[in-house]
Amino acid sequence: MTIEEAKKKALELIKNSKTCVLATVDEGGYPNMRALLNLEHDDLKTIWFSTNSSSTKIKQAEKNEKAGVYFFNEAAFQGLRLTGNIKVRRDQEAREKLWRPGFEMYYPKGANDPDYCVLELQVKKGNYYEGFEKAEFEIN
Amino acid sequence: MTIEEAKKKALELIKNSKTCVLATVDEGGYPNMRALLNLEHDDLKTIWFSTNSSSTKIKQAEKNEKAGVYFFNEAAFQGLRLTGNIKVRRDQEAREKLWRPGFEMYYPKGANDPDYCVLELQVKKGNYYEGFEKAEFEIN
Repeated sequence: MTIEEAKKKALELIKNSKTCVLATVDEGGYPNMRALLNLEHDDLKTIWFSTNSSSTKIKQAEKNEKAGVYFFNEAAFQGLRLTGNIKVRRDQEAREKLWRPGFEMYYPKGANDPDYCVLELQVKKGNYYEGFEKAEFEIN
Repeated sequence: MTIEEAKKKALELIKNSKTCVLATVDEGGYPNMRALLNLEHDDLKTIWFSTNSSSTKIKQAEKNEKAGVYFFNEAAFQGLRLTGNIKVRRDQEAREKLWRPGFEMYYPKGANDPDYCVLELQVKKGNYYEGFEKAEFEIN
């Protein structure tokens, strides 16, 4: 599997994933994971999430920006690990980019609800595997 | 949900999970995830994995023992995050505890194959959620 093939397959895996796992690092240095809806990505460069402002992941991202995301298909034995730096975005552009119909259920005030905010993972490295083949790559 | 209920549900989730996600921390401080077979656990205190000795997770665990494991059921909106310290075990007791029929396919020399080794996650903290309810607990 060439790096180009791995990147192409990685993008397909993201497109076919309903959820993914986001890891941030807690105050003690331990990796903390949680499943999140796979909402939006810009190529393999940026992975976007929305969450509530009071969540643990926001607190952790604000103290330590080192993070990772993992997409996988258990049945097909495919997995994609991306690592990079995560930013908390509260600006209008990010709020609207991630807003989806139905989010009013969780954020009654809409995209400007103070409890709604966005996480932007700026990917630096990737690792895609399928069966026993894998490829590592860097993202510029 | 009380802590006792959360722990009981957490154990049920582990029992019903074919795979889970293990996170270790790489040299740069970034969380690295990969899906692994859910093989064995001692209550919520210890989660056991087997892997090949040359894998990245072994190198990372030897340099930084802070790790986490995540079990989840996407459809039921249940998730369990466990964090603790991970140890690389190469002793006979651990090798035999994790050995499964069929592993000869990957480790032709059997439980003493030098490429086969075991990871023991000694859990310190847990967090179980179901829907919008969650409970945090410590493991002694």
